[in-house]
Amino acid sequence: MSKHRVIYDTDPGVDDAMALVFQALHPDIELLGLTSVFGNATIETTTRNARFLAGRFAPGVPVAQGAAAPLKRSAPEPLAWIHGDNGLGNIAIEAGLEAALDARPAHRFIVDTVRAHPGEVTLIAVGPLTNLALALADDPQIASLVRQVVIMGGAFGTDGVLGNVTPAAEANILGDPDAADIVFGAAWPVAIVGLDVTQRTVMSHDYLASLRDRGGAAGRFVWDVSRHYEAFHEQSAQLKGIYVHDSSAVAYVLAPHLYTTRRGPVRVLTDGIAVGQTIQKPSAMPVPAPDWDTRPGSTVCLDVDVPGMLALYEQTLCGTL
Amino acid sequence: MSKHRVIYDTDPGVDDAMALVFQALHPDIELLGLTSVFGNATIETTTRNARFLAGRFAPGVPVAQGAAAPLKRSAPEPLAWIHGDNGLGNIAIEAGLEAALDARPAHRFIVDTVRAHPGEVTLIAVGPLTNLALALADDPQIASLVRQVVIMGGAFGTDGVLGNVTPAAEANILGDPDAADIVFGAAWPVAIVGLDVTQRTVMSHDYLASLRDRGGAAGRFVWDVSRHYEAFHEQSAQLKGIYVHDSSAVAYVLAPHLYTTRRGPVRVLTDGIAVGQTIQKPSAMPVPAPDWDTRPGSTVCLDVDVPGMLALYEQTLCGTL
Repeated sequence: MSKHRVIYDTDPGVDDAMALVFQALHPDIELLGLTSVFGNATIETTTRNARFLAGRFAPGVPVAQGAAAPLKRSAPEPLAWIHGDNGLGNIAIEAGLEAALDARPAHRFIVDTVRAHPGEVTLIAVGPLTNLALALADDPQIASLVRQVVIMGGAFGTDGVLGNVTPAAEANILGDPDAADIVFGAAWPVAIVGLDVTQRTVMSHDYLASLRDRGGAAGRFVWDVSRHYEAFHEQSAQLKGIYVHDSSAVAYVLAPHLYTTRRGPVRVLTDGIAVGQTIQKPSAMPVPAPDWDTRPGSTVCLDVDVPGMLALYEQTLCGTL
Repeated sequence: MSKHRVIYDTDPGVDDAMALVFQALHPDIELLGLTSVFGNATIETTTRNARFLAGRFAPGVPVAQGAAAPLKRSAPEPLAWIHGDNGLGNIAIEAGLEAALDARPAHRFIVDTVRAHPGEVTLIAVGPLTNLALALADDPQIASLVRQVVIMGGAFGTDGVLGNVTPAAEANILGDPDAADIVFGAAWPVAIVGLDVTQRTVMSHDYLASLRDRGGAAGRFVWDVSRHYEAFHEQSAQLKGIYVHDSSAVAYVLAPHLYTTRRGPVRVLTDGIAVGQTIQKPSAMPVPAPDWDTRPGSTVCLDVDVPGMLALYEQTLCGTL
C-alpha cells in the first residue's frame, strides 16, 4: 500500500510527543510537516516543542507555527500540571537540533501542502482545531482534496464519560469549540478518536518501562517524557499508567480495524454549560434532527482492541513490526 | 420491611400501563395515588387512561389531574405512532370502572400526600416532570419530607445513546427540560433510570406471550396493550420485543441491587441544539464544575441485571414471587 502522507497538527504536550515518535518510526507514515497550535501550552511553547521533536525524531520535516488562540475566545491557561512547565514533562530540551520553521502560518502550510498532493494528505489533529478551521476558511476546496482527517478529541459517553475538563467536554474540543464544529461540518472524511477509546487504552507503568528498556533512544525518550504525566494520572485518576490519547489517532490511521466505529454527523455545543460537548446523530437513528441532518457523516470510534493498539505502538518503537 | 408508599406520576402510555400493573400487583408497593401529566398523549387522554388503569388494577386508588403543558413551552404533539391514538395501544377502554378524580391538581395532591406521610412517600415519575416541579414551587419543604424520587428519563451515553427523540434528548426530559432541571436540583434523594438501562432491558415477543399465557388477566392485558407498541419497536429499531422504560423505575424501587449506579449532580440543558440532555458530573471527577458543584448528588443507573429485572416483573404478574 502507499504510505500515509501526514500533516501532524499538534500542541506538544507529552502525549503529542509520544505520538510524534510513533509516526516518525512507523514505516507506513511519511510526515510532510508539523503544524503547531496552542492548547497544552502556549503557542510559543508548543512551537518550540514541535521543532525540538521534529529535529530529533523526524529530521528534515518542517514545522509551521499556528494559532495562538481560539477563533472567538481567549487562549486557555497552559496545562502545566499535566504536561509540565515546558509542555514536555519538564525533561531537558536540547537546543541546536530544532527543525526549520516554515515562514507560512500553519493554516497556509496545510492549504499549500494539500494542494501539492491532491487526494493524498491525511491530517492528524490532536489539539484544538483552530488551524484546520482557518485552513477551511482560507480555501474551502481543500475539503475535497484531503484524504482523511483524524481527530483526537471529544467524548461520546460509552463509559459514562462525556468530558475530562468539564462534565461535558474534552480538552481539545473545549479548546476551540467553534473551530471543532466547523471541522466536523466540512465535507471531508473525518474520523474522531475520543475519550471513549483513548481512556480505555492505558499504557501501564510496566509497559512504559519495557519500552524504555527495549525501544532504544525512542523508548528511553518516551519513558523520560512520560514521568510527570504518569504522576498526574496517578494523582488524578489513581491510575498506574497513562491514558493513550494522541497516539490513538495515529493507530487509527495505521490500523482502523482495531476500532469499532459508528457513522453519523457530529455537532459541537458552542455555548451553555455543556460547551465543547460532541454529539453524534447515529446514522441508524430514525428520527429527524435538523441540526444534524444537513451535515456530512463522521466516523466516531466507540471501542478499541486495546492489546492490538498497544502491540502496534510497542512493535513500532522496538522495530519488531 | 415496610411497604413503599408510592405516588405514581404518569402519562399513560403503554409502558406506563405496564408499570402500573407491576406496582398494583407487587405486595411491597402501596399505591397512594396516580397523578397524570401530558406527554405520551394529551392531558385529557392520559388522565382518562390513568383513571381507567387505576379503576381496573388498583381499585380505590385516586387519580389527580396534572399539567397540560410544560412550565415554559407549549405541549408537544401526542406520540400516537408509539402509543396509539388512545395512548393505550388502541385497545378497547371500557367505561364505568374509572377511578375517582381527585378535586385537587396533581401538584397539590403530591404536596398534601407527602405532608400526610412525612418521610414515607416515594414518587415514581415516568413522564415529563412538570407536576413535580410545580409541587416544589408550591411547597419547597416537601423535598425534605419525601422518601425518594425515582425518575424514568434521560440518558447518559453508556451505549453511545444520549437520546431517543433527538440525538441528545430522551422524550420525558425533553417534554419539560426546565422542570427536569428543577427536580434534579432539589434537595430530595433522586434516582434516575434512563435509556442506559431501559434500552438494555428488552421484553421479547416470547416473554410477552408467556405473560399472556401465565399471568392471568394482568398478563393478558399486558399482551393486548403492547401489540401496537411492539410493532413500533420492530419498525423503528428492528427489535423483536419492547424496551422496558417505565417498569424499570418500579424495579429500581423494589430491587435497587439490580442496578449499577453512579452518584453526582445532574444538570439538564434547557436550550440549544442539545436541549433536554441530562449531564452528570460523577462524584469522582476531580475538576471543578461550578454549574454542577453547588447541586445535590443524584443516583444515575448505568447498568442493569437484565435477567433479574425481567424475572421480577414476570414473577410479580404471575404471582410466583
